[in-house]
Amino acid sequence: MSTSSESSSNKMWGGRFAEGPDAIMEAINASIGFDRRMAKQDIEGSRAHAAMLAAQGIITDTDAKAIREGLLTVLSEIEDGTFNFSTALEDIHMNVEARLTEIVGPAAGRLHTARSRNDQVALDFRMWVRDQCDAAIDALPRLMQALVAQAEIGADWVMPGFTHLQTAQPVTWGHHMLAYTEMFARDLSRFRDARTRMNECPLGTAALAGTGFPIDRDMTARTLGFDRPAANSLDAVSDRDFALEFLSAASICAMHLSRLAEELVIWSSAQFRFVRLSDRWSTGSSIMPQKRNPDAAELLRAKIGRIFGAQTALLMVMKGLPLTYSKDMQEDKEQVFDAADSLMLALAAMTGMVGDMAGQKDNLEAAASSGFSTATDLADWLVREAGLPFRDAHHATGALVKMAEDAGIDLPDLTLAQMQSVSDQITAGVFDVLGVHNSVASRTSYGGTAPANVRAQVARWKETLA
Amino acid sequence: MSTSSESSSNKMWGGRFAEGPDAIMEAINASIGFDRRMAKQDIEGSRAHAAMLAAQGIITDTDAKAIREGLLTVLSEIEDGTFNFSTALEDIHMNVEARLTEIVGPAAGRLHTARSRNDQVALDFRMWVRDQCDAAIDALPRLMQALVAQAEIGADWVMPGFTHLQTAQPVTWGHHMLAYTEMFARDLSRFRDARTRMNECPLGTAALAGTGFPIDRDMTARTLGFDRPAANSLDAVSDRDFALEFLSAASICAMHLSRLAEELVIWSSAQFRFVRLSDRWSTGSSIMPQKRNPDAAELLRAKIGRIFGAQTALLMVMKGLPLTYSKDMQEDKEQVFDAADSLMLALAAMTGMVGDMAGQKDNLEAAASSGFSTATDLADWLVREAGLPFRDAHHATGALVKMAEDAGIDLPDLTLAQMQSVSDQITAGVFDVLGVHNSVASRTSYGGTAPANVRAQVARWKETLA
Amino acid sequence: MSTSSESSSNKMWGGRFAEGPDAIMEAINASIGFDRRMAKQDIEGSRAHAAMLAAQGIITDTDAKAIREGLLTVLSEIEDGTFNFSTALEDIHMNVEARLTEIVGPAAGRLHTARSRNDQVALDFRMWVRDQCDAAIDALPRLMQALVAQAEIGADWVMPGFTHLQTAQPVTWGHHMLAYTEMFARDLSRFRDARTRMNECPLGTAALAGTGFPIDRDMTARTLGFDRPAANSLDAVSDRDFALEFLSAASICAMHLSRLAEELVIWSSAQFRFVRLSDRWSTGSSIMPQKRNPDAAELLRAKIGRIFGAQTALLMVMKGLPLTYSKDMQEDKEQVFDAADSLMLALAAMTGMVGDMAGQKDNLEAAASSGFSTATDLADWLVREAGLPFRDAHHATGALVKMAEDAGIDLPDLTLAQMQSVSDQITAGVFDVLGVHNSVASRTSYGGTAPANVRAQVARWKETLA
Amino acid sequence: MSTSSESSSNKMWGGRFAEGPDAIMEAINASIGFDRRMAKQDIEGSRAHAAMLAAQGIITDTDAKAIREGLLTVLSEIEDGTFNFSTALEDIHMNVEARLTEIVGPAAGRLHTARSRNDQVALDFRMWVRDQCDAAIDALPRLMQALVAQAEIGADWVMPGFTHLQTAQPVTWGHHMLAYTEMFARDLSRFRDARTRMNECPLGTAALAGTGFPIDRDMTARTLGFDRPAANSLDAVSDRDFALEFLSAASICAMHLSRLAEELVIWSSAQFRFVRLSDRWSTGSSIMPQKRNPDAAELLRAKIGRIFGAQTALLMVMKGLPLTYSKDMQEDKEQVFDAADSLMLALAAMTGMVGDMAGQKDNLEAAASSGFSTATDLADWLVREAGLPFRDAHHATGALVKMAEDAGIDLPDLTLAQMQSVSDQITAGVFDVLGVHNSVASRTSYGGTAPANVRAQVARWKETLA
Repeated sequence: MSTSSESSSNKMWGGRFAEGPDAIMEAINASIGFDRRMAKQDIEGSRAHAAMLAAQGIITDTDAKAIREGLLTVLSEIEDGTFNFSTALEDIHMNVEARLTEIVGPAAGRLHTARSRNDQVALDFRMWVRDQCDAAIDALPRLMQALVAQAEIGADWVMPGFTHLQTAQPVTWGHHMLAYTEMFARDLSRFRDARTRMNECPLGTAALAGTGFPIDRDMTARTLGFDRPAANSLDAVSDRDFALEFLSAASICAMHLSRLAEELVIWSSAQFRFVRLSDRWSTGSSIMPQKRNPDAAELLRAKIGRIFGAQTALLMVMKGLPLTYSKDMQEDKEQVFDAADSLMLALAAMTGMVGDMAGQKDNLEAAASSGFSTATDLADWLVREAGLPFRDAHHATGALVKMAEDAGIDLPDLTLAQMQSVSDQITAGVFDVLGVHNSVASRTSYGGTAPANVRAQVARWKETLA
Repeated sequence: MSTSSESSSNKMWGGRFAEGPDAIMEAINASIGFDRRMAKQDIEGSRAHAAMLAAQGIITDTDAKAIREGLLTVLSEIEDGTFNFSTALEDIHMNVEARLTEIVGPAAGRLHTARSRNDQVALDFRMWVRDQCDAAIDALPRLMQALVAQAEIGADWVMPGFTHLQTAQPVTWGHHMLAYTEMFARDLSRFRDARTRMNECPLGTAALAGTGFPIDRDMTARTLGFDRPAANSLDAVSDRDFALEFLSAASICAMHLSRLAEELVIWSSAQFRFVRLSDRWSTGSSIMPQKRNPDAAELLRAKIGRIFGAQTALLMVMKGLPLTYSKDMQEDKEQVFDAADSLMLALAAMTGMVGDMAGQKDNLEAAASSGFSTATDLADWLVREAGLPFRDAHHATGALVKMAEDAGIDLPDLTLAQMQSVSDQITAGVFDVLGVHNSVASRTSYGGTAPANVRAQVARWKETLA
Repeated sequence: MSTSSESSSNKMWGGRFAEGPDAIMEAINASIGFDRRMAKQDIEGSRAHAAMLAAQGIITDTDAKAIREGLLTVLSEIEDGTFNFSTALEDIHMNVEARLTEIVGPAAGRLHTARSRNDQVALDFRMWVRDQCDAAIDALPRLMQALVAQAEIGADWVMPGFTHLQTAQPVTWGHHMLAYTEMFARDLSRFRDARTRMNECPLGTAALAGTGFPIDRDMTARTLGFDRPAANSLDAVSDRDFALEFLSAASICAMHLSRLAEELVIWSSAQFRFVRLSDRWSTGSSIMPQKRNPDAAELLRAKIGRIFGAQTALLMVMKGLPLTYSKDMQEDKEQVFDAADSLMLALAAMTGMVGDMAGQKDNLEAAASSGFSTATDLADWLVREAGLPFRDAHHATGALVKMAEDAGIDLPDLTLAQMQSVSDQITAGVFDVLGVHNSVASRTSYGGTAPANVRAQVARWKETLA
Repeated sequence: MSTSSESSSNKMWGGRFAEGPDAIMEAINASIGFDRRMAKQDIEGSRAHAAMLAAQGIITDTDAKAIREGLLTVLSEIEDGTFNFSTALEDIHMNVEARLTEIVGPAAGRLHTARSRNDQVALDFRMWVRDQCDAAIDALPRLMQALVAQAEIGADWVMPGFTHLQTAQPVTWGHHMLAYTEMFARDLSRFRDARTRMNECPLGTAALAGTGFPIDRDMTARTLGFDRPAANSLDAVSDRDFALEFLSAASICAMHLSRLAEELVIWSSAQFRFVRLSDRWSTGSSIMPQKRNPDAAELLRAKIGRIFGAQTALLMVMKGLPLTYSKDMQEDKEQVFDAADSLMLALAAMTGMVGDMAGQKDNLEAAASSGFSTATDLADWLVREAGLPFRDAHHATGALVKMAEDAGIDLPDLTLAQMQSVSDQITAGVFDVLGVHNSVASRTSYGGTAPANVRAQVARWKETLA
């Protein structure tokens, strides 16, 4: 009941698939264009499998040795760039196998024993994602170190603590840098948890039901650095949690990066000038010398879209899929590859930018000092030291701010006499909390912005990250 | 205040960016790896711009001629595969320009007059997306024709009309195929609307503020097939609605494809056997002859994830961006390229599958006939023809179904006497609506499943799609 | 094989569903908590259906009259707040029907003739979404009018035209306001297209297969303001495109709102002070008089998340659903209700904020004038008027900017002699494009930022929006 | 420069906000409609804060006692439903505080000391989300128990192991149930990790900078069940990771639920009849006795949309937000409330369905036995026991399947002689792996589907879950 014939098919498929159904199916089936990135993992897995088969007496030691050495040859060809990838062989697994057969002959076929494409691809992809967790676990502390270095430099620099992008209270530059350190520490912790959870080996689950061959799954799991073999073959073949959890952790991390990137963009504006990005991480204009486009920060701010887009894609793919393997699941890799590349690029760029950037101490302090930013310090002092009820303290503060505003001066510039005209319980001690430096110095509660706190946290982080 | 030095940078950046900041910035800035896909649009836009500049006397006819011919040479080099793309030249625009300079000399520089990279890239991308709309507008009617052909073949084949994947009422195969035709017709309409809305030409808005050169934007707009020049330069440079609207339309279309693909997967199962996909669109097993894996349907079902992931990514990128251009927006193209490729592949594959598939008439009818699927026909007849109140009709139907069930027969197998024992208002006319063929034949209200309706709709669609 | 018994169920379900399965199923099935919002649409649809049944002789005029009047009574009870909604009756349709039966007796049952819950809910929801399109179509021009009013006030106010949040070229306030007007005009156009496309009436498709009753679907479609009856009953029952397209249009609109909101937040900062939001649309601090938190802008910036979250939810729900109705689709309404509420609130708030805000002309101009923002004007003039090749013009501009920078002055403050020392082709005419006012005045190409252009566009918009 | 006046505002705002700007701002600011759900957490936090203030001598014991008892009164009023929530008081914090003031007088004001709304809301919401983690941690083992009970019942029932919804190999019902047990165990582990990571107390970070009052954050953290106080005040106020990580874990869990739900829907179809859902979890038709709509499974399949929609919404809200608090973040709660409700409902419903469902052993086995599902067992046996090379084994298997197919019988029905006619190395031992029961029994590799394995895993899970 075909409504098409070969002769008419070309017109039917239009320009993009002029060659007809075969071209479409090749586009659907061929994954070698992207899954070649898993070559290293594929070969590592096959070598472990061969060693186990020999140890269990399922294949001969001679065959295993030939296979294992042949695979090393294939790997070096791929790494050298001399390997000839073939689309006709569809995927990385068949490309490697075909070349192995050329090198070692029929013994190559024995590598298939007690293994199927299903557990092989599940293994390769899981190992690839595990490597990405490791890369994130490696990259995040570098970024944290760059932030801690900034915190150390500006432990006592004052800057506005914003709410609603309006100055609320003065804080320290170091405290602000450490806020991001906390965020990236949580990201690090999430990648570690994800890595631990995914570290179960699917190899040996075969097509989906396990096998009757006397394999030793503990051995292959151990060889490949897994904590244990996966306990259920159906689950092992159909599970993509490891990729989704990696993407979830990456999305939250990218959100943190987007917040810091947004601040860097705003802080680099001519109106703020809170920070000067190095030439390396910004671009200029040959005829407009002041223009310093924070290109890297902007691109990095955007990466959250790409990474979360990948998470959206994969979750939507997995929604409602019956067990075990469906072809839908072939859509998993490119998304994760792209998201991982984006994350690693963003982490590296942010580390570079933070490492190179120069906080503009004077501009930060000037901004922190405007807008009666220590009004809450005054109100708190009135409660704490002068014993006023909260409501009265608030009222007195409002009167004093108005007095200063009318006089065109800041709160610490009021005289004690002026202050006492509003509340006679005010003493000279009040000046200890007025002025932005006094304000931040007074915030010594655990987690507060006081320079002493910042220095203690810097010391803690340096030890942790050493 | 850099915390890194060249000498230490290699360690700092880890394996992926071992060369340090320069490698990172190159990765951030270089778009030639993907934007080369817009070469044709870029050259077409430049040729139109050069012609306009000459027509307005801004450059000489000689220069314009040299530029326009040189660009054709560049295009043919690209199409031939002899063009040498350079990452150092970052993007397609600079790659084309550098080659043009080699070919025509300094005149190439005059192409920049009254144009900036900003409006150039806005133009190229918009034209690329417009081409994708055209491709969708071309592909959807082919798919609809394949569905209509199936509808014609099985205009009177009965099959279960499902709710909750449970048989509710018999319907016709043709009616089911036409339901999808309606969906894809709406998709077609959405792509047409999107194309119309995006068809405003950004060329001539220059960097962002327009230009003082006496350009003729109507001329370039017309030459490039646009309905008009864009009316506001800031908007023209920062607008990505056209890409988002394309992705929205593509996402809804992909959702329709996923529904049909899901049905094909379920219908191909051994338990259903409602349809037989051709060998072209399924894969088998050399040792399990009955296995017919609906690979194409499954992959296509998954494409909604990828396409909607792209929409998610781009919308998230655009969220909260101040005007006009930010580097964030460089993240737009790869997403749209990938989504468009996915959509075109999915449409082609679905067209092929639908064209080649064979509905299994007997299995469909057998499934439709089970489960007293004409019980509602009986109840409706009792209301309509026998004049029973709805509640009484419902009650009588329940009694008759129970009678049939107890006897192990279907409703049309009851005798008139048996029926009249439940309600004496039943006449022989009742048999006109019992049995799945009678049932579907009776559903003649506009939009109903009756074969006559299906044939009328098929005729209408064939005319529309001719 | 139940593993639970009534007696143990309470413990099993834990605190939230202590009453056991019945409470869970009620939570799953009851939609009256939210679908009561469709009461008006439900009653309007039922009244049209009753009138048609009578016109076709399917029910008596007496019954139809009783039903139609009874429904008006029900509606007024609901509008008065005297209607007693019952969760036991699950949804709005059964609540209305039960009350109608109390009022008019058994005639109420005849309303069911040739109609099912499936087409009833499809109709109600579609009419509700259509009303939301109308609300957006009503609200967007108000917002555009507010923007146009701002554009008229500041048609010639200069401000920085930003790329990368760095000043690139001076533009006019009016031009910036009109950029958003263009965006919202596209949104308006999208809602109109969506409304047109969804305006097909599902009523009369019955359960899913159509009906044998001699109904007149054209009549009900016309009565309810639809362009035509839906052409395929399976599609009409299972289609949620109308909701998805509304959400797509709303998401893009929300993206535009988020961009403007972001600008308002940045512009309201102490560092920018480009705009002063009215007290109505910002909140302050009783003790920090300068603090003006742009609360409304921030909340509105966030609405894109909520609206796009709804689109994500509904698309994911629909992915891979076989025809026709599945219970999954009950998850459609709350998402759309919430998104529509969010959109309408955001449009109203933005209209209010834009209407009330005061651009700070002096600050805008001062910002535009810094950073040699007219350097490109100078370069363009050298090409256009002095006939320099682009490269030479660029070089000369760089030299002049450096000269001005060294002297601590801006470009228009250089003397003609100083200029001619760099290029003797410079004449006094160059001063016509230097200085931000001259710069913007010179950008007269269509779509450019020149005040004259802005005023022409304002006039066009006022006419269009009148 | 307002373009509106009070008198015209009503028209301007249209129907929904006819009262004008005040109604809009109230809609923007009032959160009491939803945040009242955090009343318990709010009061618990305030009580801990009051006790600490007294312990540190910041307020008197008398005041602390009055506050703490007054708060208990407020809580009981809320729990009794006698509390009078006021929209004018905007949020739960102010509602509680106002009532507390009525009860205990001015002492209520001292509760504010060293605390701000910012850390109060951060605390309340975090505790609420932590409670949801606990609820998931409580609910998941119940679901796992239900699955394990099913696995125990059908440890040796054979059913098709599907790939592509096509039978690939026979597996056991118990093995299939345990695959889901593994998935939900990972979910459980994710919720536990999330809970651990979020268990840092923000209370005491005050507005954003910490405080000068001598507070004891360790004490409040300990009292409220936290592991430690949060280490950075800026981070503590602006962090929403805890909500995002909860939503990520919930999304992956919902994906697992959607897969199981999809299987239940397909398995409940008349074509499959693999499972019979109890009447409690399905709905029927009064006139179509066989119809058993799996409503609960379908609704639950859809919940992934709603939950992931919430994650999308919140991540998009947080994207690019500068530190610390912005009003955008008020959009966090409703999303999380809705997602948590959806998850808890879905877990409860799935637990009920799984507990009550009856696997249809005979249908499962019949389906498993068709399609030569033990062909791979035969091929494996030929390699393993008869020593054939893989390729030869595969070839022989194909020949035997064809022989059986031609004879209209299944593989185990072939005689030994017939088998030996294809390969003389076949012995009677081959029958040990043919037939679906032999096949599954032979898959004894760790993680394989053999009934013995299933029973061992059931025992392990029962111990773990006890």
